[in-house]
Amino acid sequence: MADFKPFDRLCLIGIGLIASSIARAVRERGLAKTIVCATPDQTHREAALSLGLVDEAFASNAEAVRGADLVILCTPPGVMSLIAQEISADLAEGAILSDVGSVKQTIAESIAPHVPAHAQFVPAHPVAGTENSGPAAGFGTLFQDRWCIITPVPEGGDEAIARVQAFWEAMGANVELMDPKHHDQVLAITSHIPHLIAYNIVGTADDLEAVTKSEVIKFSAAGFRDFTRIAASDPTMWRDVFLNNREAVLEMLGRFSEDLTALQRAIRWGDGDALYSLFSRTRDIRRAIIDAGQDSAAPNFGRDTGPDEGDD
Amino acid sequence: MADFKPFDRLCLIGIGLIASSIARAVRERGLAKTIVCATPDQTHREAALSLGLVDEAFASNAEAVRGADLVILCTPPGVMSLIAQEISADLAEGAILSDVGSVKQTIAESIAPHVPAHAQFVPAHPVAGTENSGPAAGFGTLFQDRWCIITPVPEGGDEAIARVQAFWEAMGANVELMDPKHHDQVLAITSHIPHLIAYNIVGTADDLEAVTKSEVIKFSAAGFRDFTRIAASDPTMWRDVFLNNREAVLEMLGRFSEDLTALQRAIRWGDGDALYSLFSRTRDIRRAIIDAGQDSAAPNFGRDTGPDEGDD
Repeated sequence: MADFKPFDRLCLIGIGLIASSIARAVRERGLAKTIVCATPDQTHREAALSLGLVDEAFASNAEAVRGADLVILCTPPGVMSLIAQEISADLAEGAILSDVGSVKQTIAESIAPHVPAHAQFVPAHPVAGTENSGPAAGFGTLFQDRWCIITPVPEGGDEAIARVQAFWEAMGANVELMDPKHHDQVLAITSHIPHLIAYNIVGTADDLEAVTKSEVIKFSAAGFRDFTRIAASDPTMWRDVFLNNREAVLEMLGRFSEDLTALQRAIRWGDGDALYSLFSRTRDIRRAIIDAGQDSAAPNFGRDTGPDEGDD
Repeated sequence: MADFKPFDRLCLIGIGLIASSIARAVRERGLAKTIVCATPDQTHREAALSLGLVDEAFASNAEAVRGADLVILCTPPGVMSLIAQEISADLAEGAILSDVGSVKQTIAESIAPHVPAHAQFVPAHPVAGTENSGPAAGFGTLFQDRWCIITPVPEGGDEAIARVQAFWEAMGANVELMDPKHHDQVLAITSHIPHLIAYNIVGTADDLEAVTKSEVIKFSAAGFRDFTRIAASDPTMWRDVFLNNREAVLEMLGRFSEDLTALQRAIRWGDGDALYSLFSRTRDIRRAIIDAGQDSAAPNFGRDTGPDEGDD
């Protein structure tokens, strides 16, 4: 941190949850002298300015990137390639182009051809977020103690990678370098499949005739409400994730469905030992996640009971 | 509350999360003069006494129920029928027998034959809990603003039902009366299927070769960690739930799998509109759950960001 050299001009393309969290973290920690953003949404431009997130807000991506030494694509993954094409001619000499996409292989492959020879491309993915969207949803500690995965490509040299790594570390994140294909497999199981089955069960519940929607809502504290949180995430971004990480998602989904069929069979045939055996070993993973500092150990994530209520 | 007539002697069979939460709520609100419990586990008996949860702790269920005017079965559902048989001869004249089982139809049917003519049976299910187990895991506000479902049977008269209802209301719960079969359908979708798929995905993740367990743990903040919480719930209790609510669980699971197959197909064929359409409508359910007071509106359930961090 002490020797982090701030960027002169940071340009964020998009100003949603992730971009607005970057803007706050960068402001709070002095990681760039000027911050600008680009978004076609006038309301978001006004919000970004009035919240003090950016110094300038542009409607045009090409105008926004001029003179920036760090440009980060923070839009849904599906439009990143198009934006890279739009801004290509306007990227400054020596500029670093990065992104925050949740899928890396297909996205990086579609952006790379648009990166001019005088710029560097360093794909990255901060593994952090909430179910909320928009410029007001961000907060400066979103990346604190979370992981940011950088997936190097030939279009970005070691120096640019090191600068992007230092940038994320300065925002409190831990950085890991990973092959893009492997990144997409890891995220398929830790993020994409969980989101898919959360969206799916909320949809299934919504369609039932035997149980009303109001009953589902009333009695959601029995477990269902945990799933609705991530099923409230941004629909455009998640559509793009599944369209762009098809191979890994379908592979993991096949495993998940096979395992679920085995559980279904155990229930049908009353095989209590098979159920007990699975239900016991899953506890260890929870404990390991808490020990690794990746979740709260408080019951119900701490949402129901303050510390004063829980220990009397 | 003002006119709630305390029970003389409350007997809790089992002293885990739910029973120890009842004991705390009853103590704090003066809902019974004496509280006793029964458990074969000596460590739990000692904990219950040293935590001040109960006045007496018995190893024998039959001894524990003597003289109690309210007896609540708080064990895993699978042993409730056996316990009802054990205590049958010792239930006091006019005693109310209740339970807290997450499955009602099969359990109530298996308990009912053991209820003597001089006692009343009122099955109930408080829809509340955490992933933690044991006498130290309980807290007195667990039932506050949560629902408790009573599923009346012929073995319990209106007066006994009213007393059990008043008891749960005095602990802060809202009470709803429901047919046992319908209860089991509602809970299948709001609780049993969510637990099953959470257990399942944690198991699937644990078995992968392409992604290591340590990677799953490191990057769990991307969504997976939400699922591990309920997959850390008590394995014995959940085995019993699935063995005893087979019909409703298999029916709902069939729906879930069908819907998941449709999503899988949409991903395979790149049908972005189908994905977007589902991902949009699931947001409304989340909002309705928050509006109904059944979950926190704070991002990430409030676990990552205190109010001071989130709004700067």
